[in-house]
Amino acid sequence: MLASWFRLKYPHVAIGALASSAPILQFDYITPWTSFYDGVSQDFKSESLNCFSVIKATWDVLDERGSNDAGLLELSKMFRACKTVKSVYSFRNWLWTAFTYTAMVDYPTPANFLENLPAYPVKEMCKIIDGFPTSADILNKAFAAANLYYNYTGNQTCFQIEDGDDPHGLSGWQWQACTEMIMPMSISSESMFPPDNFSYADRSEECFTSWGVRLRPHWITTEYGGYKIDKVLKRFGSNIIFSNGMRDPWSRGGVLKNISSSIIALVTEKGAHHLDFRSATKDDPDWVIEQRRQEVEIIQGWIDQYHEDMAQISS
Amino acid sequence: MLASWFRLKYPHVAIGALASSAPILQFDYITPWTSFYDGVSQDFKSESLNCFSVIKATWDVLDERGSNDAGLLELSKMFRACKTVKSVYSFRNWLWTAFTYTAMVDYPTPANFLENLPAYPVKEMCKIIDGFPTSADILNKAFAAANLYYNYTGNQTCFQIEDGDDPHGLSGWQWQACTEMIMPMSISSESMFPPDNFSYADRSEECFTSWGVRLRPHWITTEYGGYKIDKVLKRFGSNIIFSNGMRDPWSRGGVLKNISSSIIALVTEKGAHHLDFRSATKDDPDWVIEQRRQEVEIIQGWIDQYHEDMAQISS
Repeated sequence: MLASWFRLKYPHVAIGALASSAPILQFDYITPWTSFYDGVSQDFKSESLNCFSVIKATWDVLDERGSNDAGLLELSKMFRACKTVKSVYSFRNWLWTAFTYTAMVDYPTPANFLENLPAYPVKEMCKIIDGFPTSADILNKAFAAANLYYNYTGNQTCFQIEDGDDPHGLSGWQWQACTEMIMPMSISSESMFPPDNFSYADRSEECFTSWGVRLRPHWITTEYGGYKIDKVLKRFGSNIIFSNGMRDPWSRGGVLKNISSSIIALVTEKGAHHLDFRSATKDDPDWVIEQRRQEVEIIQGWIDQYHEDMAQISS
Repeated sequence: MLASWFRLKYPHVAIGALASSAPILQFDYITPWTSFYDGVSQDFKSESLNCFSVIKATWDVLDERGSNDAGLLELSKMFRACKTVKSVYSFRNWLWTAFTYTAMVDYPTPANFLENLPAYPVKEMCKIIDGFPTSADILNKAFAAANLYYNYTGNQTCFQIEDGDDPHGLSGWQWQACTEMIMPMSISSESMFPPDNFSYADRSEECFTSWGVRLRPHWITTEYGGYKIDKVLKRFGSNIIFSNGMRDPWSRGGVLKNISSSIIALVTEKGAHHLDFRSATKDDPDWVIEQRRQEVEIIQGWIDQYHEDMAQISS
């Protein structure tokens, strides 16, 4: 996201940008607010309807069983918490993160971006859920699935479910998401998460409580545009690649069509969150190899053009 | 200047810009620092070498005659000051402004932009100076020339030479020129002004004294570019007209060559500070009429293109 904006605002500093998995349209009313969680849900549903349904049913069961101290203690044991968990919301967040981030990195190759994960991790998670007898405890199923995300390497003996640390430095993003990067996201009743509406007023209160700041929800579209971006950039700007893998729920807020001959959308059906930026591996499918080849070819074209322009000065 | 930057930074808000007399290259080391005062001097020299020489000789004489209270009192009478002037620098600034701003509005039509002035005011000023006998008091010549600038309508009975008001609201610009808009300007020994070097350090001290702020001399080129602007914008950006009249000393810091098919330089040999923006008059020469016609035609093209793009959406 930053790469494309950098190119647009500082064309004298960067001659081009490769913006991979950049949801530059996930602001204001440009993209439907339910699209992110619709995307996560679609990833799971496409692998297994049972898997999707189990996860969808998890939240109510979790709320019920965690409604008192005895329940929380029992859940803490089941979820191998390092310390007894005091709020059912901690379990909820822990599971939520596992499902959401796994969808984001639903690669055809093992991930090492957020956590270590196998190739096609949504498929693997659903295999775990589907491997249980139908009658098994639904929370056992959900825990086993989350275990793939948090403990694929198998070296965790317990989990910091409450007051976990911030290994990915995401608190910086939380601040940004409370000031300039206001992405309204709601959850439809068709998704595998509990339905939820987004409210600017509520978010503003949360942000004020957490950071002492108020939202500037229209800053980003004022500064960088977004509405009718194809019409704007067709006649303005150049040298940007927007690459998106459709398995990434963020792709729904991305640029998925070519805007001009030098503002290009590269869309892959199966990729996920900037897979093209991960190191090449021997397991890369042909379409990832081809995508990276195209990106290098286009960027090489920009550099060649730059050198031609510079040669014209001296001639 | 603002128009072109607005188009570059907010292409989603403005589909095009007409930037007339915009010295966007008068920053850092892009344009020679002496160019502005060289331009003013050239305007006067091109009308009359005597006129140029009289003005060039004025400064030393003024300094000498204003070096004591008796001299200042005498000068105050000669210059019809409303109140006795306490510093010779006030006379100097008063004359300086008259010569500089007259060069800026050296139009073929009467000006009403800064002060009321006749058509071709530099020629008129030089006629006044050249009309004196060679032996006349040089300061009488300079005063008579400045009188054209400050009192063309003839309704001033005395002049606020010291602590004048700010009829054009230029103090706002002074603040801007102390923070983001740092235009280094020095004066060569070939010009009609006393030679002067620009120093970032000295300017910084002046600005701190006046406004309590420090310069950010590289802000403008960091934010908007400027170095190799033709190479940058040839491949990026669209729909800007840079119009310049070469009689305007600011034109030397402007964009004087086409950058691309839609970033266009319109240069007129005789125009001055955004003459094209003044109301049409019956005295307009053909080349001004033609310049305005071209500008309207180009802008109409942008608007037509916009409507075509919009029509494509609905079709």
